[in-house]
Amino acid sequence: MSREQTEVGAAKWWGWGFESKTYPLDDRPQFWPYLMRTFKLTEITSCPRVEFDQVRLPPSRISDRTLAGLKRIVGNENASTAKHDRLTHSLGRSYLDLLNLRWGNIRNPPDAVVYAKDEDDIQKLLKFAETNRLSITPFAGGSSVVGGVEPTRSRVFKGAIALDLRRMNSVLDVDQVSLTATIEAGISGPELEGDLNKRGFTLGHFPQSFQFSVLGGWIATRSAGQYSTKYGKIEDMVEGLTMIAPTGRIETKAVPASASGPELKQLLIGSEGILGVITKAKLRIRRLPEVGRCEGLMLKSFGSGINAIRETMQNDLIPTMMRLSDPDETRVSLMLSSEPHEFVEKLTTKLGMWMLARLGYLSPQACLMILETEGKPAVVKAERDEAIRACKRNGAFAIGSGVGRTWLRERFELPYLRDVLLDHCMLVDTLETATTWDKLETLHGAIKESIETAIAEMGVRGLAFAHVSHAYRDGASIYFTFIAPQVKGKEVEQYLRIKRAATECIMRNGGTLSHHHGIGKDHAPWIREELGANGLALVKAMKEQLDPKGMMNPGKLLGST
Amino acid sequence: MSREQTEVGAAKWWGWGFESKTYPLDDRPQFWPYLMRTFKLTEITSCPRVEFDQVRLPPSRISDRTLAGLKRIVGNENASTAKHDRLTHSLGRSYLDLLNLRWGNIRNPPDAVVYAKDEDDIQKLLKFAETNRLSITPFAGGSSVVGGVEPTRSRVFKGAIALDLRRMNSVLDVDQVSLTATIEAGISGPELEGDLNKRGFTLGHFPQSFQFSVLGGWIATRSAGQYSTKYGKIEDMVEGLTMIAPTGRIETKAVPASASGPELKQLLIGSEGILGVITKAKLRIRRLPEVGRCEGLMLKSFGSGINAIRETMQNDLIPTMMRLSDPDETRVSLMLSSEPHEFVEKLTTKLGMWMLARLGYLSPQACLMILETEGKPAVVKAERDEAIRACKRNGAFAIGSGVGRTWLRERFELPYLRDVLLDHCMLVDTLETATTWDKLETLHGAIKESIETAIAEMGVRGLAFAHVSHAYRDGASIYFTFIAPQVKGKEVEQYLRIKRAATECIMRNGGTLSHHHGIGKDHAPWIREELGANGLALVKAMKEQLDPKGMMNPGKLLGST
Repeated sequence: MSREQTEVGAAKWWGWGFESKTYPLDDRPQFWPYLMRTFKLTEITSCPRVEFDQVRLPPSRISDRTLAGLKRIVGNENASTAKHDRLTHSLGRSYLDLLNLRWGNIRNPPDAVVYAKDEDDIQKLLKFAETNRLSITPFAGGSSVVGGVEPTRSRVFKGAIALDLRRMNSVLDVDQVSLTATIEAGISGPELEGDLNKRGFTLGHFPQSFQFSVLGGWIATRSAGQYSTKYGKIEDMVEGLTMIAPTGRIETKAVPASASGPELKQLLIGSEGILGVITKAKLRIRRLPEVGRCEGLMLKSFGSGINAIRETMQNDLIPTMMRLSDPDETRVSLMLSSEPHEFVEKLTTKLGMWMLARLGYLSPQACLMILETEGKPAVVKAERDEAIRACKRNGAFAIGSGVGRTWLRERFELPYLRDVLLDHCMLVDTLETATTWDKLETLHGAIKESIETAIAEMGVRGLAFAHVSHAYRDGASIYFTFIAPQVKGKEVEQYLRIKRAATECIMRNGGTLSHHHGIGKDHAPWIREELGANGLALVKAMKEQLDPKGMMNPGKLLGST
Repeated sequence: MSREQTEVGAAKWWGWGFESKTYPLDDRPQFWPYLMRTFKLTEITSCPRVEFDQVRLPPSRISDRTLAGLKRIVGNENASTAKHDRLTHSLGRSYLDLLNLRWGNIRNPPDAVVYAKDEDDIQKLLKFAETNRLSITPFAGGSSVVGGVEPTRSRVFKGAIALDLRRMNSVLDVDQVSLTATIEAGISGPELEGDLNKRGFTLGHFPQSFQFSVLGGWIATRSAGQYSTKYGKIEDMVEGLTMIAPTGRIETKAVPASASGPELKQLLIGSEGILGVITKAKLRIRRLPEVGRCEGLMLKSFGSGINAIRETMQNDLIPTMMRLSDPDETRVSLMLSSEPHEFVEKLTTKLGMWMLARLGYLSPQACLMILETEGKPAVVKAERDEAIRACKRNGAFAIGSGVGRTWLRERFELPYLRDVLLDHCMLVDTLETATTWDKLETLHGAIKESIETAIAEMGVRGLAFAHVSHAYRDGASIYFTFIAPQVKGKEVEQYLRIKRAATECIMRNGGTLSHHHGIGKDHAPWIREELGANGLALVKAMKEQLDPKGMMNPGKLLGST
């Protein structure tokens, strides 16, 4: 079983992924009619984007002399002030980022882009930047959805450098006894899994951005993959890491566990570039699973699905993934299926539609769950048995592996749909949080209401739907997608209103500010509330220690405070 | 199944545990002869200890006025300069601590002991201490074996206060849905498990000090319990915690996981009192296991036992405990068994001694493993099957549950044996580390040699033996005990020489400075090497932020630097 997923082609400067790729809605005939019905629209409009040539960037503030200095450090080919380099390092991939890219509205491009080859480059670059009053924004996959990679053109600095790490992409060492791999921070998901898979291993980290995001970015933002329920978040996978900060290099000791004071690596993980540059990590890897099984279940309500996941998680045999869509997401998934109602059809032949309806599995409250188990056959059997038992106790109805195969095939594709929706003047974004089981269903309802209310306040109809993805013994994360027709001329205000309403709702209801997207620029206004004044002061003290000049990714995580 | 273990009685001021309790060697007739043979001794001598009345403490430096101020904060009965209070808060329970207690050599007693009732007490106390230039050493169970609770009588401060937390011992809240419990930091092991067990839950944290150690101490030192392989170390159990530092209160958000920047709780866990006082924590708890099974296995070598544990851990179904003794510890266990050779006798009736010997299970290289599995029957079965399979693949021979029962009965008793050995002029101590699987067997051999060489350099024969206790996917901890006849008049030098040799060996061979005992005063000389200069600077920056006057547990973790 190979997990490698590579595709070739140029990346879009204006959207998600490869130029050559989209999310074709032609063979998903139900989707637009469904949105039109839901939003009470009579037509689908078009919102074209500007062409590359039409984009005007603010001029680089870097002098030729400074550029020459950068080139002396990293080599001529690895420092650039060219438009394409600057443009493709100016924004992440949040909804507002995509809007601004499509409008050609680039306010904070880096003044230069530097590609580092090794730690030595980075050490010299940080010294050079300090001497020349330049800020440094580490750039990994550029897939941040919270404004984590947009440089700040602050007057405190004479220039902003985007430091691209993707040329540091080697697997340096694999320890087949301890099951660890030492890997450079600039490696992408497919490169990393490709290399490990060939040797018979996997990291098991598959965020939706997998095809483009990069190890250093995963670590800097406390990323979670789709299989985190079994494999853990990235912070669980890091045995040790190396960071180069303006005041020096830190390499945490790579041991399974320690009692040598505060756990420093947990301070560097999640530091979002504000303390220094993560250059490599020693990661806990696994043997490739021998078997894998991905299947669907229908539940009569979101609450019963949550119970099924909770009971499974509190029972020690943990499956790879239990992904539970709420009723609206279940409906949207159905509307997006290219083989319409495929799994419902299968059910029908098996049981008869009237029977299913009667049993409650086709009600408006019905929820789809995808259950994945993988590993050695005996382990998979034990884990699956327990999960299925918990699901059946909560009234689940097994619908086979067809829906599982569909999910597996499309699990990295949905970001492409955002571009299609933007082409047609739709607002679309996602947000996520985590909380304990006792608060989860209430929080879900509250967020949905807060988003839909905020959408309605601007005079349009919208839709917010969610799934429970990453589960723990004590709680789970919940991941929302929301779609609404754009309010012309007020696109930014419309989005910010929704984002603010949802975030305030999360903070009010015991959710965390972010479970795996990070803080970046967009969540920074709430970081004081999240960490408390004294907790925030502690992070600032660490920044002061490692980056006294404040040159590392200014404006992120802590905001401008 | 109740896990509560309470006993009544006064605590020894001079040794481990209850006055009324010892570790009787009379019904373990093989032990002294074995030690005499091993150490080539012709007689066992006696080293009596001083009586309470003979102990002279340096006078308290606290004025009546200051004592009155303390009493105003916590109440008359909760602040004391009485000899018994000061003596029982002056040292932990390391070998040197025990020696000094027995000699009546108390150099650093606190000037006063204060018992806090609540967070308010602590907040006021910290303010008062700051104003009056007093240092504060938080005191939980007092079972530190690394000098973590010995106050420092520094001239920078006018007095040293021991802050006893054991009156803050309530279970504040149990969330039966999320399986979490909010508990005050001063609760002892038996109090905590007693309360949770009555409600049908367990924390699953059983350090050898369980009967006396305290939640706040566990968290402050990154404690590991005997069942940590399944239940995790204390840092895995803490969902959130509260600390009162001189500059304010920090309450980390209690969520299953987060991406809101650095994980603050992992900076406070392991802070050993130098940043502030941990007052309460929200802990992840479990339902009481329905069944438990504890059994013995014999392996032909330490290496094959290590392989069996590693293969099990890397296979996803994790048992509760796999505790593997090295050949010498296996022999000592046998010599300590009250029913001599119980399990060997059972084997003999089953298989015949000649057969066992022929198969290699009675060779000098043979190793004993205790395997514990507990939980729901189906889970236990699955986990045990996998563990037993890995053991048998590595040539293990199952010897039934008798040895498991013995281990369970005596698992908190061994510290009492130390007092008996000290009564008879024996040096005895333990130390521990953790490393990755690839280095474990080499590290084990190197530590054993370093200890035995250091012992021999002082002209006596000693013995160092170990077990692998806490296992992880990527490695394990290793726990050494060493015994030797004391070198009269040079007891301290003898101990320090061994400790230095072992610690330097650990650092040279890729072990961590401590896996679960902590740093305290004794490991502080190596903390710079462990964390690196820049890592250490980061911890100091945290301390500067939370405790700018340096009044919290001075001299610990960071040393006097």
